[in-house]
Amino acid sequence: MIAYEEALKIVLEKTKPLGNEKVFIHQALNRILAEDIHADRDNPPADNSGMDGFAVRHEDIIGASEDNPAALKIIGESKAGDLPPKLEKGAAIPIYTGALIPEGADTIIQKELTKVEGSIVYILKELKKGANIREKGGDYKAGDLLIPKGKRLRPAEIGVLSSVNKATVYVKQIPRVGIITTGDEILDIGENITKESQIRTSNTYSLYTQVLETGAIPTIIGFAKDNPEDIKEKLKWAKNCDVLLTTGGVSVGEYDLVKDFVSKELNVSIHFWKVALKPGKPVAFGTWGEDGEKIFFGIPGNPVASMVVYEILVKPAIKKMMGYQNPENKIFTGILTEDFKRKSADRLEFIRAYVEYKEDNFYVKPFTKQASNMLTSMLNANALVLVDIDIHQIEAGEKVRFIFFDREI
Amino acid sequence: MIAYEEALKIVLEKTKPLGNEKVFIHQALNRILAEDIHADRDNPPADNSGMDGFAVRHEDIIGASEDNPAALKIIGESKAGDLPPKLEKGAAIPIYTGALIPEGADTIIQKELTKVEGSIVYILKELKKGANIREKGGDYKAGDLLIPKGKRLRPAEIGVLSSVNKATVYVKQIPRVGIITTGDEILDIGENITKESQIRTSNTYSLYTQVLETGAIPTIIGFAKDNPEDIKEKLKWAKNCDVLLTTGGVSVGEYDLVKDFVSKELNVSIHFWKVALKPGKPVAFGTWGEDGEKIFFGIPGNPVASMVVYEILVKPAIKKMMGYQNPENKIFTGILTEDFKRKSADRLEFIRAYVEYKEDNFYVKPFTKQASNMLTSMLNANALVLVDIDIHQIEAGEKVRFIFFDREI
Repeated sequence: MIAYEEALKIVLEKTKPLGNEKVFIHQALNRILAEDIHADRDNPPADNSGMDGFAVRHEDIIGASEDNPAALKIIGESKAGDLPPKLEKGAAIPIYTGALIPEGADTIIQKELTKVEGSIVYILKELKKGANIREKGGDYKAGDLLIPKGKRLRPAEIGVLSSVNKATVYVKQIPRVGIITTGDEILDIGENITKESQIRTSNTYSLYTQVLETGAIPTIIGFAKDNPEDIKEKLKWAKNCDVLLTTGGVSVGEYDLVKDFVSKELNVSIHFWKVALKPGKPVAFGTWGEDGEKIFFGIPGNPVASMVVYEILVKPAIKKMMGYQNPENKIFTGILTEDFKRKSADRLEFIRAYVEYKEDNFYVKPFTKQASNMLTSMLNANALVLVDIDIHQIEAGEKVRFIFFDREI
Repeated sequence: MIAYEEALKIVLEKTKPLGNEKVFIHQALNRILAEDIHADRDNPPADNSGMDGFAVRHEDIIGASEDNPAALKIIGESKAGDLPPKLEKGAAIPIYTGALIPEGADTIIQKELTKVEGSIVYILKELKKGANIREKGGDYKAGDLLIPKGKRLRPAEIGVLSSVNKATVYVKQIPRVGIITTGDEILDIGENITKESQIRTSNTYSLYTQVLETGAIPTIIGFAKDNPEDIKEKLKWAKNCDVLLTTGGVSVGEYDLVKDFVSKELNVSIHFWKVALKPGKPVAFGTWGEDGEKIFFGIPGNPVASMVVYEILVKPAIKKMMGYQNPENKIFTGILTEDFKRKSADRLEFIRAYVEYKEDNFYVKPFTKQASNMLTSMLNANALVLVDIDIHQIEAGEKVRFIFFDREI
């Protein structure tokens, strides 16, 4: 049995990022950029107005004030996208935000500081020369590196991609994640219950949507009964996946079945089985494929253990494959609102909790029902609190470390 | 010009949640539940074992210890999904996690506390009667309310839905959000630049992906030149949207064009135009459709203003339509790492910043380039700091309020 930290280290060492692919930029949201993005031209591409108002020659408005306005003749217009007329002495050209600065103009007076009467505009305040002009290349110059490879693409990055004329972009590939649910007693949705002992799956679809939330491609390989033929067949169907998750069949009594078959059928090398972790102790991890580039997790069948193991071991691995530079869960600190006690303290425990942010702090309410078969205990939880080995008790008011498992915190 | 808080209040009052629809549960991730979910049976459905080990009669193991083990005859087996044999006095039945408790058994001894020699198992410790037995209905009983309507469906909820035999589920509908980009100078990706003053769009695709990230359905209605025919045509195409976003054409010079046309063509009632907000002052909001059930935002054309206005006004409205009970952005507190100064303090300002969590606190680095045309200033920002009206300066070390605009904090 190894420590969780050691297990996570092995997982992240053995897991390699996938290759690159080209996608349309709207599909690139939350993908990891695989090429450097450079500017195709200066931005702004030319000097332009930062305001709606009037383009003037600074020499014509020196000393202008409300009591002593400068009177200028209105000529022409400069709208965004148009080529403006030339500005003569003693004149002003109406101009809109983003429009080109007319030849001869050197200052923009915003509309609010002017008064129009017929074909005359009164300038009510002298602004300094160059006011309200946005300079060509002021944001960036052609050739500048705008987004370095390795960045996750958010709406701001997608906007920049379109502004430099990228319709498609190289990003890291995302893994296909196969899910095999094992167990004679497990039924899919819609199947008839014929024995009291049968259980309808929850893990298949919580894992499926956990994979979706991570941004990878879930594939339900199916439900395997606890017999060699069925397991063999389902493993065969998993061959084109990058990640294989099995749920169930990894506790003391059953583990050998899954372990033997993944080793035999898919040539998986198991790197660890059993982690000093609660819930999720009997988790197995291995690599397979031609160069060990594919990964395998044998996930315990308990619904809570399944969700927790996904969050703390599988998700970091999948994010590593997707090219994330920091695939680990972020750890926050909060204040425990109720005492927490446990009898056995030989494992790192992830306690379900509800975290609320108020008065500048995270407040952490631990749940009292912690049995790992109680999926309902996950319903109101939005975080997992880390309770270290040898810690039997944490009192209300003490600081605790936690990770979020809800995308909306 | 109204205050931001007032503007947000008007937006949330005027915006109504959409109706319900039925979707497959894997499509229901992050949707808002529109029906109460009750348990279809007890869980666990029958008493079962919480451990791999041996099912015994407690009376047979009283006083058992390593020095004085109780020797029991091994008979049969209880595997998950099977009907186990009856347990006779003086015997023990091998049992696996989740398997039914054999008739006559009242205690489960985990494998680790036993030793097997041939057909005899030695019990090395007396556990109390009922140990390691998970009781029928211990998690919940048939008919119990498991998930109330109004909850956002996360992987835990999806797992519970499948476990109660739901393949499909009623959720709130999501809005179709039409995006019209206005401006003679704006080009789409791939269009040829023929004038120095032309700008390639960023707002179209940053808005598109912001809508995607919110979980709604973006639709690019297209690019409208600043002339009545083109604007009219594009507005016609927007008629089947629930939300209409226009970008550009709302500052002093151009607003009337968009305002007049949305009023005339789509019968939009404008509820406000101009908010004491920076960036994003010239934002317009209105309602339209048969019962005023559709909404309209006229979003400024500046790339940063566009992204910020989406986050702080449009996103809360879309989430309200989607059925979110708390659609507002959550506000966090952090410590400013550098002095911030501004000249004009007549508006609430949303300052771009990079927030990092370390040593139990959020540290907030404000950006120095705050011009609203500088999209690149969004690239390294992951948060917006609120600077209140009349505040000219905030010193490093002071606490500030901020919202995240990155899903991964």
